Amino acid sequence: MKIDQYQIDQHNDSIMSRHNNQLNFLKEQLGEQGINASEVISALEAFQVAIPSWALGTGGTRFGRFSGGGEPRSLEEKVEDVGLLHALNRSSGSISLHIPWDIPQQAESIIGLATSLDLKFDAVNSNTFQDQKDQQHSYKFGSLSHVDPAVRKQAVEHNIEVIKYGKDLGSKALSIWLSDGSCFPGQSNFVKAFQNTLESLQEIYAELPADWKVYVEYKAYEPNFYSTVIQDWGSSLLFCQKLGPKADVLVDLGHHLPNANIEQIVATLMMEGRLAGFHFNDSKYGDDDLTVGSIRPYMLFLIFVELVEGMKRANRLADTYAWMIDASHNVKDPLEDLLQSVEAILISYAQALLVDRKKLEQARNQNDVVLAQQILQNAFRTDVRPLVRESMRLSGGSLDPIGLFRNLKVRNGLMNERGKITVATGL
Amino acid sequence: MKIDQYQIDQHNDSIMSRHNNQLNFLKEQLGEQGINASEVISALEAFQVAIPSWALGTGGTRFGRFSGGGEPRSLEEKVEDVGLLHALNRSSGSISLHIPWDIPQQAESIIGLATSLDLKFDAVNSNTFQDQKDQQHSYKFGSLSHVDPAVRKQAVEHNIEVIKYGKDLGSKALSIWLSDGSCFPGQSNFVKAFQNTLESLQEIYAELPADWKVYVEYKAYEPNFYSTVIQDWGSSLLFCQKLGPKADVLVDLGHHLPNANIEQIVATLMMEGRLAGFHFNDSKYGDDDLTVGSIRPYMLFLIFVELVEGMKRANRLADTYAWMIDASHNVKDPLEDLLQSVEAILISYAQALLVDRKKLEQARNQNDVVLAQQILQNAFRTDVRPLVRESMRLSGGSLDPIGLFRNLKVRNGLMNERGKITVATGL
Amino acid sequence: MKIDQYQIDQHNDSIMSRHNNQLNFLKEQLGEQGINASEVISALEAFQVAIPSWALGTGGTRFGRFSGGGEPRSLEEKVEDVGLLHALNRSSGSISLHIPWDIPQQAESIIGLATSLDLKFDAVNSNTFQDQKDQQHSYKFGSLSHVDPAVRKQAVEHNIEVIKYGKDLGSKALSIWLSDGSCFPGQSNFVKAFQNTLESLQEIYAELPADWKVYVEYKAYEPNFYSTVIQDWGSSLLFCQKLGPKADVLVDLGHHLPNANIEQIVATLMMEGRLAGFHFNDSKYGDDDLTVGSIRPYMLFLIFVELVEGMKRANRLADTYAWMIDASHNVKDPLEDLLQSVEAILISYAQALLVDRKKLEQARNQNDVVLAQQILQNAFRTDVRPLVRESMRLSGGSLDPIGLFRNLKVRNGLMNERGKITVATGL
Amino acid sequence: MKIDQYQIDQHNDSIMSRHNNQLNFLKEQLGEQGINASEVISALEAFQVAIPSWALGTGGTRFGRFSGGGEPRSLEEKVEDVGLLHALNRSSGSISLHIPWDIPQQAESIIGLATSLDLKFDAVNSNTFQDQKDQQHSYKFGSLSHVDPAVRKQAVEHNIEVIKYGKDLGSKALSIWLSDGSCFPGQSNFVKAFQNTLESLQEIYAELPADWKVYVEYKAYEPNFYSTVIQDWGSSLLFCQKLGPKADVLVDLGHHLPNANIEQIVATLMMEGRLAGFHFNDSKYGDDDLTVGSIRPYMLFLIFVELVEGMKRANRLADTYAWMIDASHNVKDPLEDLLQSVEAILISYAQALLVDRKKLEQARNQNDVVLAQQILQNAFRTDVRPLVRESMRLSGGSLDPIGLFRNLKVRNGLMNERGKITVATGL
Repeated sequence: MKIDQYQIDQHNDSIMSRHNNQLNFLKEQLGEQGINASEVISALEAFQVAIPSWALGTGGTRFGRFSGGGEPRSLEEKVEDVGLLHALNRSSGSISLHIPWDIPQQAESIIGLATSLDLKFDAVNSNTFQDQKDQQHSYKFGSLSHVDPAVRKQAVEHNIEVIKYGKDLGSKALSIWLSDGSCFPGQSNFVKAFQNTLESLQEIYAELPADWKVYVEYKAYEPNFYSTVIQDWGSSLLFCQKLGPKADVLVDLGHHLPNANIEQIVATLMMEGRLAGFHFNDSKYGDDDLTVGSIRPYMLFLIFVELVEGMKRANRLADTYAWMIDASHNVKDPLEDLLQSVEAILISYAQALLVDRKKLEQARNQNDVVLAQQILQNAFRTDVRPLVRESMRLSGGSLDPIGLFRNLKVRNGLMNERGKITVATGL
Repeated sequence: MKIDQYQIDQHNDSIMSRHNNQLNFLKEQLGEQGINASEVISALEAFQVAIPSWALGTGGTRFGRFSGGGEPRSLEEKVEDVGLLHALNRSSGSISLHIPWDIPQQAESIIGLATSLDLKFDAVNSNTFQDQKDQQHSYKFGSLSHVDPAVRKQAVEHNIEVIKYGKDLGSKALSIWLSDGSCFPGQSNFVKAFQNTLESLQEIYAELPADWKVYVEYKAYEPNFYSTVIQDWGSSLLFCQKLGPKADVLVDLGHHLPNANIEQIVATLMMEGRLAGFHFNDSKYGDDDLTVGSIRPYMLFLIFVELVEGMKRANRLADTYAWMIDASHNVKDPLEDLLQSVEAILISYAQALLVDRKKLEQARNQNDVVLAQQILQNAFRTDVRPLVRESMRLSGGSLDPIGLFRNLKVRNGLMNERGKITVATGL
Repeated sequence: MKIDQYQIDQHNDSIMSRHNNQLNFLKEQLGEQGINASEVISALEAFQVAIPSWALGTGGTRFGRFSGGGEPRSLEEKVEDVGLLHALNRSSGSISLHIPWDIPQQAESIIGLATSLDLKFDAVNSNTFQDQKDQQHSYKFGSLSHVDPAVRKQAVEHNIEVIKYGKDLGSKALSIWLSDGSCFPGQSNFVKAFQNTLESLQEIYAELPADWKVYVEYKAYEPNFYSTVIQDWGSSLLFCQKLGPKADVLVDLGHHLPNANIEQIVATLMMEGRLAGFHFNDSKYGDDDLTVGSIRPYMLFLIFVELVEGMKRANRLADTYAWMIDASHNVKDPLEDLLQSVEAILISYAQALLVDRKKLEQARNQNDVVLAQQILQNAFRTDVRPLVRESMRLSGGSLDPIGLFRNLKVRNGLMNERGKITVATGL
Repeated sequence: MKIDQYQIDQHNDSIMSRHNNQLNFLKEQLGEQGINASEVISALEAFQVAIPSWALGTGGTRFGRFSGGGEPRSLEEKVEDVGLLHALNRSSGSISLHIPWDIPQQAESIIGLATSLDLKFDAVNSNTFQDQKDQQHSYKFGSLSHVDPAVRKQAVEHNIEVIKYGKDLGSKALSIWLSDGSCFPGQSNFVKAFQNTLESLQEIYAELPADWKVYVEYKAYEPNFYSTVIQDWGSSLLFCQKLGPKADVLVDLGHHLPNANIEQIVATLMMEGRLAGFHFNDSKYGDDDLTVGSIRPYMLFLIFVELVEGMKRANRLADTYAWMIDASHNVKDPLEDLLQSVEAILISYAQALLVDRKKLEQARNQNDVVLAQQILQNAFRTDVRPLVRESMRLSGGSLDPIGLFRNLKVRNGLMNERGKITVATGL
């Protein structure tokens, strides 16, 4: 299944006049506010969000999994799926692999496939939260933090192997989400668990290629329901401080306690030069892994307000951070879901770019809270979708990715190719 | 301090051309979607949000209260403040009094003042969460639920007195927020507290005039920190069922446990014909009483989606419900804050009116979750501010209430009239 | 694998002297407080907690499942496992089946087995949160609430079939936990979902035998992460009110929003005569399904304080309610875990029975909060374990169930019989 | 009002025989487990909990304050109140002052008074969350983080003045709880607020005497309801790392997001050598400031398990940390409430001292989660009250502080001396 450029162009043509009308009006409106819409559009074009290989199938819960049809059966098909997304939105130009779900048997051929679809390989992810069939030691009681050095060694070696796979593919980072922790008071010695983990991470860190980073993700709970070894950003940062400059903190929006002010965490990590990037998703209760922007779009916007500010302060470009979607979705077509997620990210980014920073700082300096709120809300309430559409179009993508996906009956095509009851590896 | 119509008109004239440009473009866009913008505008014009008398001064926390200047020193000045708001936005056409903070000594003269400002008197609120100077029994351990019948009697009589004041002013409802509960396990017998409260409410209910309602508000916690007698909508509904058809459930957005799905509560109460109305505010942690729409605007929109649906289903008009702002604000000018709150409410209402109900039901019937989300998000992402502005303008209000408030230096005027260190009654 | 009475007696004998010493001292201490320890012990003996068939294997999370060895491979082996528990603690005298995981092919033989182990069949549970292999319609988008009548019909028929299985086994109740809900705003029409569910439940209700009950369980979230059809006790109660007197509300401790005052919910439901019973477990974050009493033992005690009070008020015996454990446990031997859970329940019940109700009411009537707290804490801080042990011993059980379980190497025995890598049906 | 030693002795004598009976039995029981009860009692004797000056009056909420009678009207009377507590329990041997509520006009005379009551002066607390009458700049928009350097300077100078008062009294630490933050998105520049605060803290740090510490407290929210400058332990630690070795993190149990694993935070801070100490209280929802141990006693125990472990690891004595109660209580006699809080702390400490550390580590090393839980629960379920009573008695205190407080009608005495409607400074 492939989407040809002419199909995109044809579809774009059919809705171009309406789009241009909206875009021109918005440009004019923004111009009156002193905002150069073209610069915003260029920034949007440059923003690429990685797709994780495990999001291409229907994710499930502990209560069940309701697969759809046409799910990718192999790494090649996963890459092809991301290729479809990227063809449509031109904003999903990389794939993040999860080892051992996606071991690339022949690196060269898979790189060739990716290149042909204009895709790169983002951070590689290790997995020590499940046991694999041929595994000597179980991770039932932890991996990098395990009380038994033999288990830690196995987990360290797995991570080093993941680096190796990543090197072959051109990745530049290892992303570690450690599910280690405990389910019951008394089960774990917190300090020893920290120190075991630190030692394990140091061994992995030592194996990082010179131009690599390691991302240390935190999570408040689940699958461990009493404690986790890396429970919050403070813990992650502590590990990174002890590891060295190649270690940064990865933020997943769903990994916090209720009501956490995540945007402030982002600001603090950027202040410290320690933000690795993001796993985007949305949630109402816990790590619900819902479509980005589907529950709390204003919070997503506020996070992007900090990201834009932080990047400017640090004089870093957006592509020096790791942006990835990490959502799972029982009830949607996975590809349509990802298209909605990417769109929501770009909308928030566009809104954040509209914020009048100078006026905002002035309002803050005068403690004019009403005005400060108004400045943010003015950006958020602006309908920026024409800018997002234009950025996709200019890069060769579709003005209406989901619409075209449906028009072309892509899912049907995939089901015809792959079958109706395929189940992709993943959760 | 008064705002003259010519001042509003003059200011409107100065920004009319830009407004018309935006409005016309939006009308055209909506027209293409089959939406009649004028109908939306009419609905907005008809939507009136009551202002509570206690929101006109700077609210505080247990840690301190930082008053601004020019706060109203009397009930008359409070009415005047609401008059200023209503002159500006034509959407705040009523005031909700709080007894004993706002006892109207001379009903006729205060009615005259209100009428001259085009204001009505909304529900009257009783207060048994504080002790008043001349009070025989203390409410330290409760009021309507108190173990001592003498205290309950005093609290019942206070409520009956509040009804009397309300009758004199033309109110049609008594609104009861009961802070009763307990701070420590063991302190309260839950069942007896419920039954005492029920008896007290029945005595009050018996005194309701024929065309009155009583609103029973619930709150999960604060100022009692272990239990509250009316802890959630289920408790409120149980009381209302036992009281009779004049009792309805009042929802305050900040009175829930973390992550509650409030829009579903609203839908359920409307299904049962038991929604009294709303106390609007916003919050991130608890009953933070922040400006409406300042933290979770999408949730506010989702609530309005249910309200619009529920009103249609019940064939009831918006003005048959009680809409009130209940926010408090340490760090903003109270009047500006209220203007921001009303604006946020109208924006959400307008967005909810744009939702294509027919398509939505179709998507739901086909379990097309992607499309259902898209339909809601399409409405939410539309910049509806021109509709809100137009609705205010058509009713004689300002296109830019806060801008005009600042242009006219209203707060300065109030400070000149009333002094810089006045403190309004309230929290 | 079977535990013989002589093994229990022998083990008891070896620790009897220490036990008697502790028991006698405690009896004397309680006697000084006017408490008859023997009555407490009798009450404990009469308290039986059902074991769900799905808790006998190692439960998992969406991230993985780490099975132990010797898990039951069939319904017969599940019954045998409960038989082992009951032999040890004499407090787990019933089993709650889950259809279709545990379809009894030959009712008579399974009843015979159960009877030989002194076990009864508790409420039967339906399952419409997973798809079964041979199933015509999918529950991906709901079951009793589904937009498609054909799916609802299938789900209704499944429930009626579950009743039939239950009748054959001597069960007296159908327990329904409905996972239906939605993951995204817009997906579900709340009111229609409620009404569809109500109709479905009414059809099931109509098939209940004369002496049966239906338990309506609520849950705030998971596996649906935006809304659930029966989100809280208020929703459950509303359904039960509309269904009729055979429908009661089932409370699962883990199914609430953060910080909910569950003991007050229990008191309210008992006041209304609508408490079906409990699914016991414990949790720190969400529906963590941890061992009962492992995280918040004081809350469990407070719930039992209400249960004891409510049973007395309603003049109902403990065995007229449904008590069941509903925990799942990645990191413990399932049988040991259940023994810990039952022990924690009995400890809380014993503590609640020690509360001096008369003094407590006096303290409440005098608003002596310090004393009221002291009365509860005095009961909670008493070491009641000798009473629990004695109650088990008197019924023929072990003074130290887990100790004996380990002494007898029961798990090894089970692994020898069943194999090391068996996986029980369940989550 | 003073309690004489003979009154305590007499009362002890009247209940000594029962106490000895319980104590001896417990000693014997613990002896069988290899625990030397006398060592535990000695540890309890050495544990002193500071009383904050503001807890001696009835605390309130934003909705009201219901004062009791006989509240201290002056610093002298506050010291006397703590003297009463310490006479009763011999475990409250210090007082923590709050400037400017408790400015000691004549240090020598107040030291003399304290010494006569066997009291020391604990950490001194600054207050920049309220405006004082004669204050030049308002803290409405912050203090140490304020955008205006003049306000920051004023706040810094206030802290330096507090150090001066503390030096005069023999305090050894400045405790800073900074309420600075923001109520609305946009209001605050997170990074600038952090940096302003850091500079302010550095200026204060520079004025610390050589043997002083500064405690940096964090709080998730309230009175600011969108963000706080020091929102969590990670932020506090970051400040302390940048400040230097004299800065440590102060933990207040009520200052966390819902469901936080506080015991792990404690372990981590102790691992880093950065735990200053504790503000003890309890809560169900937010910073409820309830009596210690009244809601989640098991969590308190788990915290003490970490404290005992951490002190042993660091080879530090309990008196090298800052232990203070920080509770407020609308519905109890403040002195009785404090007696309950201290008792709950000592009970938890005693339970934690009973934990068999060696067996626990063994269980952990074997991933025997069932046993690890059992070891903790065995300690928690033990009725340690005889040990706590004995520790108080041996130090000259009462076996039953609240009982004696009531017998001696201390509150009546205070009301006679001070009047029935005194209101102490504080919240």
